Amino acid sequence: MNPVLSCEVLAVGTELLLGQIVDTNSSWIGEQLAMNGIATHRQVKVGDNRERIVQCLREALERADAVVVCGGLGPTHDDITREAMAEVMGVGLHHDEAVATRIRELFASRGRRMAENNLRQAQVPDGAQVIAQTRGTAPGLICPVQTPAGERVAYLVPGVPHEMKDMLERAVLPDLRRRSGDTATILSRTLRTWGESESGLNERLDGVIERLDARGNPTLAFLASGWEGIKVRLTARAADTDAARTLIEPVEAEIRAELGLQVFGTDDETMESVVLQLLRTRGLTLGLAESVTGGLVGARITGVAGASDVFRGSVVSYASEVKFDVLGVPVGPVVNEVTAAAMALGAQRVLNSDVGLGLTGVAGPSEQDGMPVGTLCIGLVIGDAEPITTTVRLPGQRQQMREMSVITSLDLLRRTLLAG
Amino acid sequence: MNPVLSCEVLAVGTELLLGQIVDTNSSWIGEQLAMNGIATHRQVKVGDNRERIVQCLREALERADAVVVCGGLGPTHDDITREAMAEVMGVGLHHDEAVATRIRELFASRGRRMAENNLRQAQVPDGAQVIAQTRGTAPGLICPVQTPAGERVAYLVPGVPHEMKDMLERAVLPDLRRRSGDTATILSRTLRTWGESESGLNERLDGVIERLDARGNPTLAFLASGWEGIKVRLTARAADTDAARTLIEPVEAEIRAELGLQVFGTDDETMESVVLQLLRTRGLTLGLAESVTGGLVGARITGVAGASDVFRGSVVSYASEVKFDVLGVPVGPVVNEVTAAAMALGAQRVLNSDVGLGLTGVAGPSEQDGMPVGTLCIGLVIGDAEPITTTVRLPGQRQQMREMSVITSLDLLRRTLLAG
Repeated sequence: MNPVLSCEVLAVGTELLLGQIVDTNSSWIGEQLAMNGIATHRQVKVGDNRERIVQCLREALERADAVVVCGGLGPTHDDITREAMAEVMGVGLHHDEAVATRIRELFASRGRRMAENNLRQAQVPDGAQVIAQTRGTAPGLICPVQTPAGERVAYLVPGVPHEMKDMLERAVLPDLRRRSGDTATILSRTLRTWGESESGLNERLDGVIERLDARGNPTLAFLASGWEGIKVRLTARAADTDAARTLIEPVEAEIRAELGLQVFGTDDETMESVVLQLLRTRGLTLGLAESVTGGLVGARITGVAGASDVFRGSVVSYASEVKFDVLGVPVGPVVNEVTAAAMALGAQRVLNSDVGLGLTGVAGPSEQDGMPVGTLCIGLVIGDAEPITTTVRLPGQRQQMREMSVITSLDLLRRTLLAG
Repeated sequence: MNPVLSCEVLAVGTELLLGQIVDTNSSWIGEQLAMNGIATHRQVKVGDNRERIVQCLREALERADAVVVCGGLGPTHDDITREAMAEVMGVGLHHDEAVATRIRELFASRGRRMAENNLRQAQVPDGAQVIAQTRGTAPGLICPVQTPAGERVAYLVPGVPHEMKDMLERAVLPDLRRRSGDTATILSRTLRTWGESESGLNERLDGVIERLDARGNPTLAFLASGWEGIKVRLTARAADTDAARTLIEPVEAEIRAELGLQVFGTDDETMESVVLQLLRTRGLTLGLAESVTGGLVGARITGVAGASDVFRGSVVSYASEVKFDVLGVPVGPVVNEVTAAAMALGAQRVLNSDVGLGLTGVAGPSEQDGMPVGTLCIGLVIGDAEPITTTVRLPGQRQQMREMSVITSLDLLRRTLLAG
């Protein structure tokens, strides 16, 4: 194997230092570098100050083989990453007519007038290679830098996340891989889990992890994803995609055998996309009755494009009278399983759906009907079957309790459909 | 005025470099430093590697007067910020029994067994001052460092955001203010606006900005807040709070006079909290009929604690039949103002509310009823008045279009209530 290439990340923008924008770019780039077997030891944020950008660039290229620089490529006078880079390279800037033409075309295609300062984005340090812009107006730049320690490289990409990601995937990562002499294919598979802590998963997968650690390929990593459960990511390196898949598949099977229904999806799947697909496969429609979540379950479900063939709607019955009058809940306290079941049946009836799912609970700040903050009662009815109900106690403040209510309820629906 | 103190931020944790956690701490700290008149020119992320942490600390303290270090104070073998700091200070670590006692008490109060490694958190570099933990088990540390350039200071705080914020506000910022010799009170006021771009606001506030620039106090900054409009923040420095308020108030009045209803709230207010308060003041209840947003409007409204005295609920009528059958929308195409008005009336009737707000539109990926992606039709009815309707074209992909639909609809309700 070749020596591991190292690459730092430099995020440019005074607004990042002032906390007006959170730098999510560096995190994403760090993840991509790691998955491509490239080490990243330091990530720096610096303001729109030429001297300091130059200093940061020089230091990064002393320590690392490469640096990805995000931001400061726009058309305004604050955007000085190009000039700072040219200074570090010890070269001038020239006008690139091909870039200028693409900028003019972009404005024309949107029927907008182009301010002259946009042509600043066509300035290219001598010796740099352009990464053509596919969206946005700023191209990326691959800039070779001669240092006493040898040739290093800086990749300049825009700070706009989707433009940055596009250029990373299309040009920067392939170029880094080529420089590292790494011809291996890297393949990842992420198993999404719900219902166990990271340390719990770690304990249950103890044997798998020990064997993988001994072998070194594929690798296994746990990634916490906020309120959305823990991701288990397998990453394999092999000569080609088929070989990488052959490495991953038996380990994935072993993990699935151990974790069972705790694995709810893979890769880009979400709890809501999985539930929608399960319902679709079974030809079932879904209706909701939400109280504590106030519409959050419906919002999450309809965040998935194509939800309309399965999702009928939701009766958000925040006021108790709406529960009684619209959903037919028996008049009385409303944070209990009887209410949750009646809400599910009410949703099924009012929305004319096959499945009814009802949620009632206490998000706080204070208790309700004698039930503490964090209480969630779920009712679920599928077709003519008897309603299923359950009560759980969720941690956290208002927002966390509500978000966890969504995934907890959808997980109950998922497990019930899979068991049925 | 005293010379401006400078303070860098160092976030410690391999998980930050690998993108498993986004470093939001540095952004928050940067904002606090700026508001306290302290310059921050660089923020760095580094992994759990002692040599590199030491290197980063030394470099930061060469460039700046102070550094805030987040993370690496936990009980595990990866948590090595304390040891790295002692190395930079050129001192040893000692056991602090007062800290140890508080850690033991915390575990006892939660009825949990304390693993011995938790006492690593009672290790304190000689000469450092403890910032007592109020939550969590790791104390913060104020560490004086002698450098050839004079005495510098490093503040070590936990990486857990609420523990970090507590220690910043309670100990770090006051200590920095004291060192800067700055006895001024700093007061900020944020005006939240909706309906104009940053450059549009800039143009309209041209005169105000010019006068403030000449005077230097208060200062004015525009902060973009994603899909939530632009914030205009005024920050004043004065001898005390009253004097600072006296500086801000006439400027705020001037900005409000210029922007009128575009200013929807101040400071921590949101569009939904403002609308709820307006309804509450007028004794009006609200019912929703959502289609394109799938429950997002209700979810946002019920995110505000205390919404229940105003908010009745929402009929999320995602399927057209639910619009026809439950809300009484005339059968036919459903992305138009007739449907939006009928939805508003249906919400008012079904949910028994004073105000009915209906949203129908096209979030994509493809057009519907001949209407392009981004179309939003809003219907609004207050009491017995005739429904108001409007159609807007929103930019962006599915998620952005839906989020902007929420704030656009609530803004229509706000303006209508204020005009009525």
